[in-house]
Amino acid sequence: MFACAASAQNEATFSLESLSETVKPETPIPVRAGLYVTQITDVNQKEENFTIVVDVRYEWSEPKLTFDAEEVGAAIRSLSTSDFVSFARESSIPSPVGTFQNLQRRSFDKLSSVFWSSEGNVIHVAETVATLQAPDFDFRQYPFDTQTFYVRLLMANPKSFFVFEDLPEYSGMGSTLGEEEWIVRDVWTEIDTSRGVTGLESSRLSLVFTADRHLIYYWTRIFVPLLLLVTVSWANLFLEEYRRRIDIAGANLLAFIAFNFAVSGDLPRLGYVTFLDALMLAMFASAAVTVAYNVMLRRMAVEHHEERAKRIDWHVTYWGFPAIHILIVLTLWRSFFG
Amino acid sequence: MFACAASAQNEATFSLESLSETVKPETPIPVRAGLYVTQITDVNQKEENFTIVVDVRYEWSEPKLTFDAEEVGAAIRSLSTSDFVSFARESSIPSPVGTFQNLQRRSFDKLSSVFWSSEGNVIHVAETVATLQAPDFDFRQYPFDTQTFYVRLLMANPKSFFVFEDLPEYSGMGSTLGEEEWIVRDVWTEIDTSRGVTGLESSRLSLVFTADRHLIYYWTRIFVPLLLLVTVSWANLFLEEYRRRIDIAGANLLAFIAFNFAVSGDLPRLGYVTFLDALMLAMFASAAVTVAYNVMLRRMAVEHHEERAKRIDWHVTYWGFPAIHILIVLTLWRSFFG
Amino acid sequence: MFACAASAQNEATFSLESLSETVKPETPIPVRAGLYVTQITDVNQKEENFTIVVDVRYEWSEPKLTFDAEEVGAAIRSLSTSDFVSFARESSIPSPVGTFQNLQRRSFDKLSSVFWSSEGNVIHVAETVATLQAPDFDFRQYPFDTQTFYVRLLMANPKSFFVFEDLPEYSGMGSTLGEEEWIVRDVWTEIDTSRGVTGLESSRLSLVFTADRHLIYYWTRIFVPLLLLVTVSWANLFLEEYRRRIDIAGANLLAFIAFNFAVSGDLPRLGYVTFLDALMLAMFASAAVTVAYNVMLRRMAVEHHEERAKRIDWHVTYWGFPAIHILIVLTLWRSFFG
Amino acid sequence: MFACAASAQNEATFSLESLSETVKPETPIPVRAGLYVTQITDVNQKEENFTIVVDVRYEWSEPKLTFDAEEVGAAIRSLSTSDFVSFARESSIPSPVGTFQNLQRRSFDKLSSVFWSSEGNVIHVAETVATLQAPDFDFRQYPFDTQTFYVRLLMANPKSFFVFEDLPEYSGMGSTLGEEEWIVRDVWTEIDTSRGVTGLESSRLSLVFTADRHLIYYWTRIFVPLLLLVTVSWANLFLEEYRRRIDIAGANLLAFIAFNFAVSGDLPRLGYVTFLDALMLAMFASAAVTVAYNVMLRRMAVEHHEERAKRIDWHVTYWGFPAIHILIVLTLWRSFFG
Amino acid sequence: MFACAASAQNEATFSLESLSETVKPETPIPVRAGLYVTQITDVNQKEENFTIVVDVRYEWSEPKLTFDAEEVGAAIRSLSTSDFVSFARESSIPSPVGTFQNLQRRSFDKLSSVFWSSEGNVIHVAETVATLQAPDFDFRQYPFDTQTFYVRLLMANPKSFFVFEDLPEYSGMGSTLGEEEWIVRDVWTEIDTSRGVTGLESSRLSLVFTADRHLIYYWTRIFVPLLLLVTVSWANLFLEEYRRRIDIAGANLLAFIAFNFAVSGDLPRLGYVTFLDALMLAMFASAAVTVAYNVMLRRMAVEHHEERAKRIDWHVTYWGFPAIHILIVLTLWRSFFG
Repeated sequence: MFACAASAQNEATFSLESLSETVKPETPIPVRAGLYVTQITDVNQKEENFTIVVDVRYEWSEPKLTFDAEEVGAAIRSLSTSDFVSFARESSIPSPVGTFQNLQRRSFDKLSSVFWSSEGNVIHVAETVATLQAPDFDFRQYPFDTQTFYVRLLMANPKSFFVFEDLPEYSGMGSTLGEEEWIVRDVWTEIDTSRGVTGLESSRLSLVFTADRHLIYYWTRIFVPLLLLVTVSWANLFLEEYRRRIDIAGANLLAFIAFNFAVSGDLPRLGYVTFLDALMLAMFASAAVTVAYNVMLRRMAVEHHEERAKRIDWHVTYWGFPAIHILIVLTLWRSFFG
Repeated sequence: MFACAASAQNEATFSLESLSETVKPETPIPVRAGLYVTQITDVNQKEENFTIVVDVRYEWSEPKLTFDAEEVGAAIRSLSTSDFVSFARESSIPSPVGTFQNLQRRSFDKLSSVFWSSEGNVIHVAETVATLQAPDFDFRQYPFDTQTFYVRLLMANPKSFFVFEDLPEYSGMGSTLGEEEWIVRDVWTEIDTSRGVTGLESSRLSLVFTADRHLIYYWTRIFVPLLLLVTVSWANLFLEEYRRRIDIAGANLLAFIAFNFAVSGDLPRLGYVTFLDALMLAMFASAAVTVAYNVMLRRMAVEHHEERAKRIDWHVTYWGFPAIHILIVLTLWRSFFG
Repeated sequence: MFACAASAQNEATFSLESLSETVKPETPIPVRAGLYVTQITDVNQKEENFTIVVDVRYEWSEPKLTFDAEEVGAAIRSLSTSDFVSFARESSIPSPVGTFQNLQRRSFDKLSSVFWSSEGNVIHVAETVATLQAPDFDFRQYPFDTQTFYVRLLMANPKSFFVFEDLPEYSGMGSTLGEEEWIVRDVWTEIDTSRGVTGLESSRLSLVFTADRHLIYYWTRIFVPLLLLVTVSWANLFLEEYRRRIDIAGANLLAFIAFNFAVSGDLPRLGYVTFLDALMLAMFASAAVTVAYNVMLRRMAVEHHEERAKRIDWHVTYWGFPAIHILIVLTLWRSFFG
Repeated sequence: MFACAASAQNEATFSLESLSETVKPETPIPVRAGLYVTQITDVNQKEENFTIVVDVRYEWSEPKLTFDAEEVGAAIRSLSTSDFVSFARESSIPSPVGTFQNLQRRSFDKLSSVFWSSEGNVIHVAETVATLQAPDFDFRQYPFDTQTFYVRLLMANPKSFFVFEDLPEYSGMGSTLGEEEWIVRDVWTEIDTSRGVTGLESSRLSLVFTADRHLIYYWTRIFVPLLLLVTVSWANLFLEEYRRRIDIAGANLLAFIAFNFAVSGDLPRLGYVTFLDALMLAMFASAAVTVAYNVMLRRMAVEHHEERAKRIDWHVTYWGFPAIHILIVLTLWRSFFG
Repeated sequence: MFACAASAQNEATFSLESLSETVKPETPIPVRAGLYVTQITDVNQKEENFTIVVDVRYEWSEPKLTFDAEEVGAAIRSLSTSDFVSFARESSIPSPVGTFQNLQRRSFDKLSSVFWSSEGNVIHVAETVATLQAPDFDFRQYPFDTQTFYVRLLMANPKSFFVFEDLPEYSGMGSTLGEEEWIVRDVWTEIDTSRGVTGLESSRLSLVFTADRHLIYYWTRIFVPLLLLVTVSWANLFLEEYRRRIDIAGANLLAFIAFNFAVSGDLPRLGYVTFLDALMLAMFASAAVTVAYNVMLRRMAVEHHEERAKRIDWHVTYWGFPAIHILIVLTLWRSFFG
C-alpha cells in the first residue's frame, strides 16, 4: 500500500471506451453456448430469487491455441477453467468470460474445465449451483399466477469482442428438476445485449422458462378453511341471536387477521394488491359489516321494531349472505383475471 | 478481457461430439468405485434433500503413472486430489473425474487424496460432506411413507472414456449414522449411465437406500391430540345442548386450521394430497357438518319438533358420531394404503 | 512460529505516520472511480444492512506499467485483480486498493480483473455481491420513513498516495434492481475522506441513494386491521352492556399486545419510539381506559346512578369514542411529521 | 477430461489392502497427540451436534526431516500445515493426517502450522472451529438427562502406519467454555481404532466429556406453568359447576397441545418417548378424563342422582384430584429414573 | 498417506516445551499493537457472541528484513499477510502471528497486508469481520444489565518470543458503530498472558468495552403490556363478581405463560434466574393466588358468609391488590439491584 516511489502522473485522459475501440478484433468472435438446467433446488418468492444447478457449455475457435499433437503426445489439452484463464492472460490469448448477470449469492462450481484440440477448437464445460434474481415476478394473480424465470449469462467482454450464438441441441431443462410446487411450462433461449461490467454493451444468452403453481396447497390451507369459516358464520345466522352473531363475526375478524399475517409471510412486501390480499380484505370488510348490521338489528329489536328486523333478517339469512359472498368472489375474479 | 489481438476466425464448425469420437480410448477404462456413508446429518423433507458424510474410493490403472521406485526412493507416490488433477492435465494423463450428480450446495472435502504404486495402480480416497437432492420423495402416504434416497456419483468423462465398476466390499452404510427420525432399511448399489456435463452419456454409480419413519413423534404431536379433541367433542354431545355444541365445533374448526398450518410447514407445497392432508380435511368437514347439524336440531326444537330432534340426536350421540369417524379413518386408510 | 533465531532488537521507535511522510508521492495520484448498482437483493432493517450487486471501475495511470506492445504481441495486458496486486507488490509498483468501508460480511466477487495498455493506463473492473451496513437508518417515522443508503468505497492507501475522482457517466443504478418494498428516489455520488485501516485519513467515494416504502403492505396488514378492531369496539358501544364492553376491550388489549409483538420483529431494538410504536401504545391506553370507564359506569348503574351513567355514555357512544381516536391519530401525526 | 491418449489397460487386479501390506513400516510410527477444547459455541440437540473451538497438537519424529541448523541458519523450520503436507508428499516423507471423524460441516482453521527441529522432531499445532456429530445423545430422561460428547480424531493413514499416543498434560477443557445450558462433568481421553477413509482400520484419539443441564429454564418455562394450570383446574373443582369444569378442562387440553408443540421443537423426532413426552401425554389424558368425568356427573345430576354425584365429587375434589396427579408424576419418575 | 518408506523411529522423547527453551530469543521481541472497532454488526445474546468489523495493526522491528532501497528501487516493500508469512517461514525469519482468542466462526479479512521499510521496520494492517464469544455475559439484571465485551488478540507464539505492547493512539472504537440496542460506555485495552495454541503462555492484547441497553423496547413490548394486564385485573375487582375474576385470572395466567415463552427466546438457557424471570414468576404466582382467593370468597358466599367475604374483599380491592404488586416489584428490585 505504501510502496509508492515518486511516479510522474500521466495527466492525459484516456478511457475504457476509446481503448476498447483500438484493440477490438475485426469482427466479434462467435461463441456457441448452451445452458442446461438439471435441478431447481429452491424458488424463494419472498426474496424473489431461485436456485438452480446448471450445466454451461461454450465452444469457440482460437488460432493461438493450436499445438502439435505429436510433440505434446496427446490430441487434446485441458486445464481447469481458472488455470486456463490465467494461462490465456499470461499468453495474451483472448478468452470469453461469462458471468450470470442475475446471480445474487456466491455460486459454487461443482466442476469447471476447458479443453482444446490441436486445431484450436476450445470447449468450456461447467456445472454450477447458482442463486439467481427473479426481479420480474408479478404476484398480482397470486396464487393463480404464471411466472417467468430467466437464467442470464452475460459476457464480461464487450460485444465487439465476443458474441454468443445458440447451441440449441444442448440447452434445455432436465426431467427430474426436484421442484414440487411449480409446474414448468415453456422453455426457450434468447440472445441479446446488455450493459456489462465494463459499462459497455455485452452479448447475453438467456435460458427462459415459465411456470405456474400446483394449487392443492392453497386449497387445503387457505381456500377451504376460509370457505368453512364463512359457512359456519352463515349457519349461525339461522339461530337468530344478534349478540351471538356479533361475537362470531368478531372472532372471525381476529381469525382472518391472524390468517392474513400467516399468509403474508410467503411474499415480499409488494407495492400492489394481490388477488389473495383483495380476498382477505373483502373478508375483513364482510366481518366488520356483519357486526354493524347485527348491532343495528339489535337496536331495532330493543326499540320495538322487532318485526321489521326479523323481516330484513329473513332475506339476509336465506339468500343475502351467500349471494353477497359469491358476488365478492366473482367481482374479484373478474378484475384480476377478466 | 480486452486482450484481443486481431485473430483470424476459424469458421469451420466442430463439435464436442465428433472431437470425443476421435480421441476416445479403444475400450473404456474401468474404474472400480465404492461409496460408504458414515453419517446422515440431515433429512430436509421440505427442501427435498439430505446431507451425508460419505467416503468415496476409486481404483484404476494407468500405465503412464508407472515410476521407478528405486529412483524415487518410495514405493508409492501421493498428491492431494486437486494437485493430482493438475498434474494429470499438464502431463496429458487421462484421469476420471466424478461429481455427485444430485449435489445441491457447496460440498466440503474433509480429505481428498490420490496415491499410486510404481506399477501405475491408482487409488483415490475422499471424505465429503454433501447435500444431495431427493427429487423422488413421494409423500402420498405421509407420515407412514417409505422413501428412497440416492447418492449418485456421475463421471464427468463420457462413458466411452471411463466406466464405473462396483467395489461391493467397500460400499455400504456405517452403524452410527446419527439420524433419529428415519430407520434405514435396504442398501444397495446400481451402475447405469446418465447425461453428463458434456451433454454426452456418462457412467454413473449410485448408492441407494430406503428408509421409513419412527412414528412416535406423529402419535404424540398429531394423532393423539386429534383423537382427544374428537373425543371431547363426542363427550359434549351427551350434555344435549345444541348451542354449546356449535361453539365447541366452531372452536375445534379453528384448532384444526391452526393444526393444519403447523403441520404443513414440514413438507414442500405438493401437487397432491397426503394421507395427513386428507385426514385434516375430513376433520374440517366433520366440524363444519357438526355445526350445520346442530343448527338444524336447534331450529327443530324452536319450531316445536323437539321430540324428533331428541330421537335423531340419540342415535348420533350413542353410535353415529364415533361410527362416522371410524368410517372416515378406515376409508382414508384403504384409499391410501389399500 | 518458533523459527526465532536470536535477532538484535531495533529499539529505535518508528511509526507508520512518519514512514508514510517519507515515501508518499509529490502529489496524490488521481483514481477515477465509479460504482454502478445492478441489484438490491435485500434490505434487512432489523440488522440495519442491505445487500447489493455492484459494478466497480477504477482508472488510473502508472508509468511503471508501460510495455512494448510489439514485443509482448498484444496492445493490452490483463490479470485477475489478486494476481495484479501480487505482481504490483513484487515489482514495487504502487497500486490503489479499495474496500467497502461499511461491508458487514464476506463479499463475493463474481469477477475482478485489471487490464492496462502499453501506455500504462490501468483499468480495474469488478462485479461484487456485498452486504453493507446502514447505520444511519432512522425509523422514527416508520413506516412512512425515507432512508438514505450509502455504498462507501474507502482507499486502504492514505490520501497522500491516491485520491478518488468521480466517473459520473459510469456511476448510478440499474433499472431492474429487484427490490419490491422500497422505491428508490435520488441517487448521487460524494467524495470525501475518512479514517482508513492504517489509522490515517484516506480518500472515500460514496454512492448514495434515498428510498421510501411502498405502503400497501402496512395498510393491509396493520392499519386496516387496527381500524376494523377499533370500529368493532365502537359498534359494540351501541349495545349498552357494560360488562360486554369490558370483555371486548380486554380481548382487544390482548390482540393489540400480540399485534405489537408481531410487528416489533421487523425493526431492531431501538432507543426511541417510532410512529407505529406510539400508535400501538395509544391503542393499549385506549383499551385500558375503556375498561376503567366501563367499570365506572357499571358501578354507577349498580349504585343507582343509572340515569347519569346513560347520559354520559350517550356522548361517548355517539361522538366521544371516534373523536378521541381521530384526535390521537392527528396528534401523533403532527408530532412525528409536523 | 478428454485427454485420453489410447492407453493399454492393466487388467491385473490390485487392491489397496495388498498395496498397504507391501509398503507399511516395520512397526507403526507413534504420534503423541492432544486435544484441548477452549470454547463450546453451540449444542444443537435437534440436529444432534455441537460446535467447539479446539486446539490440536501432534508430535512425532521423522528422520527424513533432519537438517543442518548451521546451513539453514535456524534451529527450527516451519510451514503452514497445507504447505507441509504438499512438501512431505513431494519428498515422499510419510506424514500423519488426522480428520475429525464426526465432523458434520465445513470446519475453519484459525491457525494450523508444522515446525520441526534439526533432529527431525515434528510438532503440528492447530486451532479449529468444528461442528461435530453427537449420534449417541439419548433423550429418554430429558430434561434430566446426562449426555456424553465425543471429539473424535481419526487417522486417515491405516493403523499399520501411524498410531496415536496420549499427550495427557495437553488434553482437556478450558475454564471459560461459554456454554450456559450445560454443566460439564467428567473429561477424559480414549484411544482405539475405527474404519478409516481407506476402508482399513485406523488409530483414533477421542476426547470425551459428559454434561448435564441447568434446570432453571425447564422449571420456569415448563414445570411451573404446568403445575399452575393443574392447580387452577383443581381450584375450580371447589366451585361445583360441572359445565364450567368441562370448559376449563377443554381449554387446558388446547393449552397442553400448544405447549407440547412449543416444547417438541427442541428435540429431533425421536423413535422413543422422553420423560417430558410422557408427562405431557399424561396431562392430555388427565384433561380428557376430566371432561368425561364431569359429563358423567352432569348426566347423573340431570337424571336425579344429584346426591350421589355430589358424594363422588367430594372425594375427587378434596383428595382424589391431587392424589392422582402426584401418583402420575411418581410413576413416571420411577419408570424413567428408577 | 501410504508414502511410508521404512523409517527408523526416533524413540528419544522430546517436547515442545524443551524445544521452545532452546530456540527462544534472549529477550522477547516487543510488538506494538492496536485494535480499532469500526462496526458492531450484531450482538447475539442467545448464542453469547457479538460480531464486529475491526482494524488491527502491529508494528515491530526485524533486522533480517532490512534491504537496500536503491537496489530494490523502492523505500518500502509489501506483501499480502499470507504471502508474508510464507516468505518469513521460508527465510526462517521470526514473525508474530495473532489470532482472535474468542473467535467463534470463520472470519473474513477485507484486507490484510504487511509492509516494511529498508531499515526493517514492519507494519501489519488488517480489516477483519469477526464473530467473538462473550462467555462473561451475566444476565441476572436483564434487561437492566451492563455487559462487558472483550476483543481478545492472542499470540500463537509463546511469550518468550513475542510480547504485545499497547498502541493507545490507534486503539478505540469508531463513532458510527451501527448498533441500535446497546449504548457503549467505557473502552480500554488490557495486556496479559493466556494459554496459547502451543499449550504455553502467550501474550494477549484485549480491547474491552462495556455497554448497557436502550430500554424503550422493553418498556413498550414487556413492561407496559404487563402493567396494563395487571391494571385491567384490578379494575375488574370493582365489579365484585367472583367467577368472572377467576376467568380473568385464568386467562391472564395463560397470557403470562405465552408472554414468558415469547420473552425467553431472547436469552440462552441460563443456570440462574434473571430479574425478568423473577418478575414473570411473580406474575404467575399472583394469577394463581387470585384464582384461589376468589374460589375461597365464592365458597364463603355460598356458605352464607357473604358479609365477611365482602368485607375482606373491600380491603383487597381498594388497596390490597395494588399494594401487593408494588411490594413484589420493590422486593425484586432490591434483591436484584440493591
